[in-house]
Amino acid sequence: MTIDRTKLRWNGWGWSAHKDGLAAREDVWSWLASELGMPALLATPARPIEDIELPAARLSEPERDGFKKIVGAEHVRDDSFERAFHALGRSYHDLLRLRAGKLASAPELIVYPRATTEVLALLAYATENGIAVVPFGGGTSVVGGVSANAGRHKSVIALDLSRMETLTAADTRSRMATSEAGIYGPALEKALYAKGLTLGHYPQSFEFSTLGGWISHRGAGQGSNGYGRVEDWLLGVKLATPQGVLETKPFPASSAGPNLTELVIGSEGAFGVITEATFRVHPIPPVSDYRGYLFRSFESGVNAIRKAVQQDLAVTMLRLSDADETRYYRAFSAVGKEPALRDRLASAYLKARNFSQAACALIAGFEGDATSVARARDRFNLIAKGAGALPLGEGQGRRWREGRFHGPYLRDPMMDRGIGVDTLETATNWTGIPALYDAVSEALRTSIAATTPGANSRGIVMCHISHAYPDGASLYFTYIFPRALDDEIGQWKSIKTAATDAIVANGGTLSHHHGVGEDHVPWMEKEKGALGIDVLRAMKATLDPKGTLNPGKLIPSAD
Amino acid sequence: MTIDRTKLRWNGWGWSAHKDGLAAREDVWSWLASELGMPALLATPARPIEDIELPAARLSEPERDGFKKIVGAEHVRDDSFERAFHALGRSYHDLLRLRAGKLASAPELIVYPRATTEVLALLAYATENGIAVVPFGGGTSVVGGVSANAGRHKSVIALDLSRMETLTAADTRSRMATSEAGIYGPALEKALYAKGLTLGHYPQSFEFSTLGGWISHRGAGQGSNGYGRVEDWLLGVKLATPQGVLETKPFPASSAGPNLTELVIGSEGAFGVITEATFRVHPIPPVSDYRGYLFRSFESGVNAIRKAVQQDLAVTMLRLSDADETRYYRAFSAVGKEPALRDRLASAYLKARNFSQAACALIAGFEGDATSVARARDRFNLIAKGAGALPLGEGQGRRWREGRFHGPYLRDPMMDRGIGVDTLETATNWTGIPALYDAVSEALRTSIAATTPGANSRGIVMCHISHAYPDGASLYFTYIFPRALDDEIGQWKSIKTAATDAIVANGGTLSHHHGVGEDHVPWMEKEKGALGIDVLRAMKATLDPKGTLNPGKLIPSAD
Repeated sequence: MTIDRTKLRWNGWGWSAHKDGLAAREDVWSWLASELGMPALLATPARPIEDIELPAARLSEPERDGFKKIVGAEHVRDDSFERAFHALGRSYHDLLRLRAGKLASAPELIVYPRATTEVLALLAYATENGIAVVPFGGGTSVVGGVSANAGRHKSVIALDLSRMETLTAADTRSRMATSEAGIYGPALEKALYAKGLTLGHYPQSFEFSTLGGWISHRGAGQGSNGYGRVEDWLLGVKLATPQGVLETKPFPASSAGPNLTELVIGSEGAFGVITEATFRVHPIPPVSDYRGYLFRSFESGVNAIRKAVQQDLAVTMLRLSDADETRYYRAFSAVGKEPALRDRLASAYLKARNFSQAACALIAGFEGDATSVARARDRFNLIAKGAGALPLGEGQGRRWREGRFHGPYLRDPMMDRGIGVDTLETATNWTGIPALYDAVSEALRTSIAATTPGANSRGIVMCHISHAYPDGASLYFTYIFPRALDDEIGQWKSIKTAATDAIVANGGTLSHHHGVGEDHVPWMEKEKGALGIDVLRAMKATLDPKGTLNPGKLIPSAD
Repeated sequence: MTIDRTKLRWNGWGWSAHKDGLAAREDVWSWLASELGMPALLATPARPIEDIELPAARLSEPERDGFKKIVGAEHVRDDSFERAFHALGRSYHDLLRLRAGKLASAPELIVYPRATTEVLALLAYATENGIAVVPFGGGTSVVGGVSANAGRHKSVIALDLSRMETLTAADTRSRMATSEAGIYGPALEKALYAKGLTLGHYPQSFEFSTLGGWISHRGAGQGSNGYGRVEDWLLGVKLATPQGVLETKPFPASSAGPNLTELVIGSEGAFGVITEATFRVHPIPPVSDYRGYLFRSFESGVNAIRKAVQQDLAVTMLRLSDADETRYYRAFSAVGKEPALRDRLASAYLKARNFSQAACALIAGFEGDATSVARARDRFNLIAKGAGALPLGEGQGRRWREGRFHGPYLRDPMMDRGIGVDTLETATNWTGIPALYDAVSEALRTSIAATTPGANSRGIVMCHISHAYPDGASLYFTYIFPRALDDEIGQWKSIKTAATDAIVANGGTLSHHHGVGEDHVPWMEKEKGALGIDVLRAMKATLDPKGTLNPGKLIPSAD
């Protein structure tokens, strides 16, 4: 497989060898502690792999042999690293448990099939023997999408797709390509680039997530305004289920009944295993132009984005940070640096132009041919100018692009120091954006204040808009807080519940691009309605009658 | 309701008062007869309403009263006109039966609810009493989508939505609106126009079809390149089913599981009755520019369309007739006219420029603000020029727009004279377009030749591309043929079967925008796969466990 898993962190983000750039920056850490009202940073290291507790094995030798016969003994693993790596996803909630090293559940085996036929055989065998199966791509879910939950089964295995990583077809004339679903983001783009093509799907998890994973959680890349969400680019899919293969045909459009591809997108491994996908591709854009702007308020930035998308500007990305996120990132990167003359001049300039603490940074991305890029950029410049925004130039855009996948790496060093950081996101229509923004921000601040230890401690709550549509936009919240070490899971749950209740009460969707997993299941009936849940259960019963696949995800239990 | 049904034809297209512009044009008719190889035209008038045979009533008085109690006696009809009007759709196949006046099946009652609550009560009452229900919008289906098929039930009623026609909300800021689903196209656009908005969904049936009908058959308007297909503009929907209401929320985007709105789009009344919809709207475009081009071959026109959509040109419509369609329309409109000097000069010019009999006409439509329209038009002009095409100017575009809804009116006078005319359509990816075009054309020609009476008779087979995507396009076939009066249904079936077999064998979808109805059901398993059909059946069983709704449509019977 493309990525050697042993080089990845089993209890954190990304490459084990990734250097913590902030390790020696005590100035940064003490600044952060003071921002959080923490008297001092703590030492809260993760437990090493040697010391972790894994659940006992429950499968018989013949059962283990049954799986080995299907994929070959060399493609079945059961060592501690593999079991821990596949036990959970990579949410803050998951990391709390992984770092504590007490895994109430972990897959007993990890099987690596090479073909759809092997996946079918594995599912049939597991179903026959009452063993749950968790389909596993890159394992980067932040909503509990790959938790090794056995449900009512005697045990659970992980079905890891990462050997199924071949780009099998590319039709440049029709701008479509077909690939096995276990391919990682970088490998997929590399294979497409060799043919002059790109899919353009770049979620923050891009380096460590897979095509099948993107489809199964109905995701969106950072450039989805230009390249589309999964449902915009996915044409057809092959879903291996305990009842056989559900294959949808990649027609450009069809009115032959409901679109079953849309049932597979977001099915989160609960209906079957996505083994192959056919999708729209684009020629590699000759020009990429990312640049920054500073708006006077969140409201004026939101209106600029709305105008841009409603005027059909060819933007690839419009990403607006609220005032707190703008200030936090600016301060974070400035800590300990002697303010250079240029920076001081810039500050003075902003002050003279009446940019207050409410100023909000926006990164705009334009990709395509030179003419289209220039036209979209010029039109966006006009909109920004009309809102009194200040162009910050390409430097800001370059820096954003360089760091576009680095956010999650900051979490591990924070967690080592008693600091928690989590994110959640939603979407609603433009008219509802202000109320939803206020309600979720308030819910986060209040619930963090109620659950943090220490008299003066407080959270940092930030938000950005990262995906916009003619009818609405997403809101993505990041919040940093002192960890309640005596009840960390409880703290996580309190904050998550308060924020999600606020989302549901204010017309937001449970998730714009993270998915449902285990975490959002309690609210699914509110999102889909009782009859909608019945429909999802009927789908599940049809494709996976014994409930083999990914227990506990997506659909509330009928009990 | 907006349209007084008594002013519509129960056995043909549109307004009863519509004047047959060709009635006195014997030159046109004799030209057409000679094109079809018919020795003479026939007189094949339709049977008048007074003479038609309708099936006997099977409902008891208490059962009839049950329906009347729900909607009020004045909103329940059972006269011959109403029963005949609601017995079938408006396909050629339907018209054969309507004109013959022998209706093996017709709804026993036509009920007109005013609200979702009444629809729920009607469905509950019908289900309880074993009576089938056919949801009915405008009734313009051309694939048997509204046939009054009782299935295994004792009788069948039509549930006519046309009293549910209120635009209930419009949010200009979020560019979305909500309407009851029974509203006709013109009434919907009128209500939206009053708020400066448009949906822009203009199928050929626009005047006589409804919002709910468009959704239920997963349609596309003529301007879908600019305004989108149903699945592009529909945000949320209310579906009344025998099990209650399935309501999907109009989020701009969501990753909270499969998109259930996509299950309702194309469900053809088999899962429930669409009573309300929330959809994306646009400001009324200040500029509309429609113009004609003449391409040297179908291939060069196809390539121009492909380039335009792959370069993301802001086109509203690109409609390319093949050589036969181009020639036919040109000849049809020229019959009997003394060639004017200008026309003769034009012919000579075309000949001098080496435009052969293979020349293909294209109508391009651009809607939006003046700058966008000018830019898209200029870019398309460049593409057309590069292909050696001849710009024909705005006159062609204006004529197309004036006649955009008139096509179906030509069918009735043809059928009065022993001539049949039918259409079918499909879509595939660009690479597959040439083979699909050849195969379907050939299947139509061969099957028409095999089924037409008379030694020298033949069909006219024409095609156009009317909807294009980055990955492919639709193909729309129109065919005119001498009717086999001794076995007209058999003739229809032979031609339809041959063409559909060719579509399926050559990678086309069963339908790009007409839907499934009864006509495409025999091929649905090939389109969706056995497991796909199981999924559709599970949906149906969940929402309509007794099979009350629209028997015989969409899903092959499990028997």
